[in-house]
Amino acid sequence: MRPILTSRAKVRSYLIKLTLWRLDWCKCLVFNDSVLSDLRIKLAEIAYPIRFGAESASASAAITEALGVFALQGRKCVLVTDTGVAAALGSLLKDCFRDVPVLAISAGETSKSTATLEQAWEFLAAQRCDRRSVLWVLGGGVVGDLGGFAAATYLRGIDYVQVPTTLLAMVDSSVGGKTGLNLRSGKNLAGAFHHPVAVHVFPALLRTLPAREFNAGAAEVIKYGLLGDPALVAQLEESPLTPAHPGLAAIIRRCCELKAGIVQADERELAVEGGRALLNLGHTFGHAIEQVAGYGAYLHGEAVAIGLHGAARLSRALGLVGDDLVTRIERIVSAHQLPVRLRQPLPIGALREAMSRDKKNRDQALRFVVLEAAGKAATRSGIAPALVEQIWRELGAIE
Amino acid sequence: MRPILTSRAKVRSYLIKLTLWRLDWCKCLVFNDSVLSDLRIKLAEIAYPIRFGAESASASAAITEALGVFALQGRKCVLVTDTGVAAALGSLLKDCFRDVPVLAISAGETSKSTATLEQAWEFLAAQRCDRRSVLWVLGGGVVGDLGGFAAATYLRGIDYVQVPTTLLAMVDSSVGGKTGLNLRSGKNLAGAFHHPVAVHVFPALLRTLPAREFNAGAAEVIKYGLLGDPALVAQLEESPLTPAHPGLAAIIRRCCELKAGIVQADERELAVEGGRALLNLGHTFGHAIEQVAGYGAYLHGEAVAIGLHGAARLSRALGLVGDDLVTRIERIVSAHQLPVRLRQPLPIGALREAMSRDKKNRDQALRFVVLEAAGKAATRSGIAPALVEQIWRELGAIE
Repeated sequence: MRPILTSRAKVRSYLIKLTLWRLDWCKCLVFNDSVLSDLRIKLAEIAYPIRFGAESASASAAITEALGVFALQGRKCVLVTDTGVAAALGSLLKDCFRDVPVLAISAGETSKSTATLEQAWEFLAAQRCDRRSVLWVLGGGVVGDLGGFAAATYLRGIDYVQVPTTLLAMVDSSVGGKTGLNLRSGKNLAGAFHHPVAVHVFPALLRTLPAREFNAGAAEVIKYGLLGDPALVAQLEESPLTPAHPGLAAIIRRCCELKAGIVQADERELAVEGGRALLNLGHTFGHAIEQVAGYGAYLHGEAVAIGLHGAARLSRALGLVGDDLVTRIERIVSAHQLPVRLRQPLPIGALREAMSRDKKNRDQALRFVVLEAAGKAATRSGIAPALVEQIWRELGAIE
Repeated sequence: MRPILTSRAKVRSYLIKLTLWRLDWCKCLVFNDSVLSDLRIKLAEIAYPIRFGAESASASAAITEALGVFALQGRKCVLVTDTGVAAALGSLLKDCFRDVPVLAISAGETSKSTATLEQAWEFLAAQRCDRRSVLWVLGGGVVGDLGGFAAATYLRGIDYVQVPTTLLAMVDSSVGGKTGLNLRSGKNLAGAFHHPVAVHVFPALLRTLPAREFNAGAAEVIKYGLLGDPALVAQLEESPLTPAHPGLAAIIRRCCELKAGIVQADERELAVEGGRALLNLGHTFGHAIEQVAGYGAYLHGEAVAIGLHGAARLSRALGLVGDDLVTRIERIVSAHQLPVRLRQPLPIGALREAMSRDKKNRDQALRFVVLEAAGKAATRSGIAPALVEQIWRELGAIE
């Protein structure tokens, strides 16, 4: 009789299984601080988990565990982050990612550029990453989008793991597989759909996040409430989000859940109306503001905050919602130290021009996400340009 | 009762169907010079045709027809080509692509760069292309790879049509959905899998192709013979390819067929051995030559020609084939005015370094495509580095 274990590969495979089982079992102890269960994103071709750990100890444990599994599988790991995160989370990098080669790109929206993409590609090549290598992406939306796009296109696609470090990335950009960068002509105009193999969400990492960045993330949380959860809107109205908010972890998980539901139903944004495009609530105005003001002048969430206000006003002008919802949204946005109007006037012509390149547009016609209630949104085309310009004026734009 | 046609969209859909049916019917007349039937590439998620037209009249007719269908569908068309093709095929551009906006990138391998990709993205954005727009890619392998990658990533993916204008692009790069560009660290290291919605192959366009380019394409034809068609090898041995070769169109179609068979069986190059990686016969050596000599010093096909010779010598050293096959390959390659050895010596160290970044490598180990006969190839790992260096020396490399 042949022995049961016939090759080194089989032995290795058993060892990996044993380790995974042991780690799964240990998780009951390691993650006893976590009251939040994993979310599982199920898509046409792949499925992957979003894992939640409430305390910073969980971050180290979960990352070390995952790195250990990749090492057992003989897969090389590298990491992309930005200089800000590298400074703020230096101990996490030192403790967990010890031997992992790190590329720290410049912090800020201007890094979502072709030049930084090339830098990331050359880093992966210089580290001799092959098709089985894994790219860890530790950072906010910029690092996530850029790093994810590099993973999507290096050797025509390698695996990556997202570890979001900003509220915005935790609730929004790290879920859904959209990766990409900005062109001179507009935001997120180049990119790819490429899902991570796992997302690790550790709200404890937000304690080192600058207040302005935290608040910018709150804009996307408000968006998720407006899109699909009236109770969340009421909760934000009652007690605005802060890094110390006792419900923070549960709210982040709820946003991921809302996003996952929308993404699973319309992964490639092919729905004729509604669908994934709804996630763009506030973004048609917001992207135009970012582009015309110059990337970096407004944080993405700040521009979205103004955009949410704009979408509410547009919806009211279309007779879809009343004054009360517009007032509530203004109040919630302001309570999170976010702008409801442009800080400096921007020219309407340039904003209109920027909107005309929005990815949602079809056959050269603008398409907006409008509100039908707190917790209910819809896509809408054929809105009179004059009405859109009136909203821009209300938001502080000038001729 | 409601009328059968209830909306403008339905009327439009019927009109399009009627026109497509009429065009299909007309094709019997328009394409009566074409003796070659379409090939259909069938993949997991999509299928698309490769159309063959033997005379230059077919090119105009087929392109005009396809542009007409996109116009009926209300889809904007734009075109990417290179300055060389724009000059050589000016009348085709003027007659068929009248109102279609054109971007002509610089001719040559150096255009497979991040800078040119950005240029293509900005062109698509400046032309206000949306997700339904169609990018026509008219040119050789460089334009096809770069244009296809731009289509794969602009707005996270739009449709594109390939019209290859070189022999190399007709038989190889326009089939299979591999798009991408070169990094400083290596060739084709960044890219995406993205299939065109159609490929139009018109061998008549080769009449204006410079002889050196034509011969470079012949290297890939020789490769296809060696991979899977002993009769094709014999045919090339008997009468080398020229633009006036009476069997040219049929040989091009045969190469597309051979490639389609391999691609359909292993679309994403996931096969453990063999599979799509076989298409890399001669390319492990070839890519290293291109990179070390500097992109542009050798045409891709010229480097592959030397690589085919290298692969044959490696296979002989491994005892897989005899002297006769090596001699035959040397003779066929030379008969097509292609190099069998380096024109100027290149340093072995740099070539070895370049090979170590080959995309086929696994777990840091080199992987080669070797010959087992004329018409039969296989992938092979674990080849002694000293043997590889010996082959490099035989090809003209130095310490």
